[in-house]
Amino acid sequence: MPTQLLIKNCQVLQFMDDIPVISDGQDIWIVDNQIKSVGERLQVDGPELTEIDAAGMLAIPGLMNTHAHVPMVLFRNAGPDVNADDWFNKVIFPLEANLTPEDVYWGAMLGLAEMIEAGITSVADHYFYMDSVARAVEQAGLRANLVWAVFGHEGYAKLDETVAFVERWQGKANGRITTWLGPHSPYLCDPDFLCRCADLAGQLHVGTHIHVSETREQVELSFNRYGKSPVRVLADTGILEQPCILAHCLYPSEEDLDLLAGQPCGIAQATKTYLTLAMGLPDLEKYLARGIPLGLATDGAVSSCNLDILEQMRLLAMTQKHHDHDATKMNVDQILRVAFQGSAKVLREPRLGSLVEGALADVVLLKTNRASNFPAINAKAGLVYNLNAGDVDTVICDGRVLYQHQRHLTLDKAEIYREVSARLPRLLRKDLNHKIADYPS
Amino acid sequence: MPTQLLIKNCQVLQFMDDIPVISDGQDIWIVDNQIKSVGERLQVDGPELTEIDAAGMLAIPGLMNTHAHVPMVLFRNAGPDVNADDWFNKVIFPLEANLTPEDVYWGAMLGLAEMIEAGITSVADHYFYMDSVARAVEQAGLRANLVWAVFGHEGYAKLDETVAFVERWQGKANGRITTWLGPHSPYLCDPDFLCRCADLAGQLHVGTHIHVSETREQVELSFNRYGKSPVRVLADTGILEQPCILAHCLYPSEEDLDLLAGQPCGIAQATKTYLTLAMGLPDLEKYLARGIPLGLATDGAVSSCNLDILEQMRLLAMTQKHHDHDATKMNVDQILRVAFQGSAKVLREPRLGSLVEGALADVVLLKTNRASNFPAINAKAGLVYNLNAGDVDTVICDGRVLYQHQRHLTLDKAEIYREVSARLPRLLRKDLNHKIADYPS
Repeated sequence: MPTQLLIKNCQVLQFMDDIPVISDGQDIWIVDNQIKSVGERLQVDGPELTEIDAAGMLAIPGLMNTHAHVPMVLFRNAGPDVNADDWFNKVIFPLEANLTPEDVYWGAMLGLAEMIEAGITSVADHYFYMDSVARAVEQAGLRANLVWAVFGHEGYAKLDETVAFVERWQGKANGRITTWLGPHSPYLCDPDFLCRCADLAGQLHVGTHIHVSETREQVELSFNRYGKSPVRVLADTGILEQPCILAHCLYPSEEDLDLLAGQPCGIAQATKTYLTLAMGLPDLEKYLARGIPLGLATDGAVSSCNLDILEQMRLLAMTQKHHDHDATKMNVDQILRVAFQGSAKVLREPRLGSLVEGALADVVLLKTNRASNFPAINAKAGLVYNLNAGDVDTVICDGRVLYQHQRHLTLDKAEIYREVSARLPRLLRKDLNHKIADYPS
Repeated sequence: MPTQLLIKNCQVLQFMDDIPVISDGQDIWIVDNQIKSVGERLQVDGPELTEIDAAGMLAIPGLMNTHAHVPMVLFRNAGPDVNADDWFNKVIFPLEANLTPEDVYWGAMLGLAEMIEAGITSVADHYFYMDSVARAVEQAGLRANLVWAVFGHEGYAKLDETVAFVERWQGKANGRITTWLGPHSPYLCDPDFLCRCADLAGQLHVGTHIHVSETREQVELSFNRYGKSPVRVLADTGILEQPCILAHCLYPSEEDLDLLAGQPCGIAQATKTYLTLAMGLPDLEKYLARGIPLGLATDGAVSSCNLDILEQMRLLAMTQKHHDHDATKMNVDQILRVAFQGSAKVLREPRLGSLVEGALADVVLLKTNRASNFPAINAKAGLVYNLNAGDVDTVICDGRVLYQHQRHLTLDKAEIYREVSARLPRLLRKDLNHKIADYPS
């Protein structure tokens, strides 16, 4: 007997011929982990039917976070107001040297709790001790694409361990967990290492998830070392011919953009990190003009401070208007396409990002009654510019209710806070001579 | 018998020698409308004592909004994704032609409800039908500096009506209401009109509140019309020698900045508007280097979408890092100084912006337990980058609790929503030939 959920009488965000539309008075019928139908006054019954009264709420597809380092929430705000090189070498790489697999588990639990509170149901996570993260994802009930981050200096044996992780967890948790490979970046993995990653990804039929072209200095470094851009380095390894999430990619050349066009890769954008680390802003129109998928991301909480896709959505729209000196750019419809359709493309999961028959049943209900969202003259603009993580009432992932009326149903927050607090004194001791890697600066 | 409030066992943000410090386990003792003391385990009793258990909360000075058009919330999101000239001539000026004094009253009630929910206790509001706004402020219990906006084309008789408003409301509502003059801007008031405003302000012993240098085009227009910059126009009228809030002022020259230095004026910054309207960003270091006070502002909700000073604070910090290509700029301590000490200076009320003995009892309690704010390794950075309007639990203004556990104690939100909803169909009818003013484009 399939379990059935009926979400009743809400507003629903859908895409009609790629145009986002918010309709009133809709029901959403979920059977097992899929959406069965969306419409007015659906007639459904059955012994395994649970009804959710969603009057006054807006239903949106579960938010997607296309690039994160979830357990980094352990170090939230540990180093504000520093530039990228200090951020790597004086803040995060020394702190991460303190982590054990159990720390990462509790960091993942905390970060997943935060993402659930923020309406995020899917995350592409790039970290280490990833069995810990996978265990946490399984327990929290979210959907995740997981990669075990690896640096070139860790060597091929380490890379093989990340392959073993892929094999251990692929398709687990009712298919909610997928696993790819995670070479850190062209600046911390040499081309031979990246070629090996590409070969392995091909053998495993998986993708890769990698940082690239985050700063102008990284691009210069690549030309100095290899005589070519970081994107060209990746292209030459074959990585771009397979599914690939490119994190950030703020400084592509025109040639780089042409290399990316038509490849099965997408770009994860975490605007808050680019502002807090003063990394600059990309020209996103050039990606969109070439049909290169763009998705929203939070990055880690040591640069973006939180894991909040709604805030990232708003920041991306506003900063693109600023960047282009044109307020008509990245309009409400465009940014909603990036947030939902774009992010689903970056994650390479066409069953995400829209509430239609056959889609995976990842649904978020937002309360819309705060004074800051009234009157709702333009509900789509309200979603982009007024609703916040704090308005998330209910989160459903894979047909299961994870969070309702702002209470967690799968996670014990008090226990998570206790575990994290107990670990913090040890985790925050910093030895600048003891780092997980050296950022080239 | 004075009324007394004792806020118990919270974290408190204070400024010690201009350095913001957050201390744990503090009590705040309020007598009538002033803070009597702040410290650990204060021993207070009396028949008129009300205690507030604030364990797990962060107390901050009531937030200040140094430039707003509060009733504009009626038109929230009415025109997203448009540039400044269209925004004026095709969106807001035609819509505002529909407003009656009663509309403005209900718009003010809605906007004040929103600001209370966002922890704002003081606002400098620049609008029209200001008796309506004053009535709403009196009822809501907030603190406000109110000006009746006037355009040059409305003439001197209209200006005199705004003088009468100043006289009617100055010092009303237990001193919570102060009133200044509000000539719109140098681009919509000619120099003679502005001179008359300066004279009247001098006679009344009040200040002025005016828009200036919002876009490059406005600066060009001023040079074309008058052979000098908008700030020089204001200086030559005498307006800057008296208290003055300059809204925005994004494009001052070095000479303009020198004119402003040492004058009793301050600059209101509403970063979200600058991003949504793609107006550009100012070089705020130049103001700070000259000691020109900077405060935070929301502007109106048709450009900034909401009235949220915490969001504006974060945006200002992040965009300055971006603007300066340096993440060490506008650091956590600096932005907190702008938000509290700077805004109080712009409002010219030294008893605001800090929780010390003798300060006006405007206090906001924020819940700090959302996963997005844990762990609180750096509570000040958490306040800047993680806490949101939705975390505001309790708002006290002038010693009176206006909002507690997210419930309004002075306003009937259901009634406000009903009144606004009933007015909307009429308010949203737009006739581009019927505008309150013409923006020169």
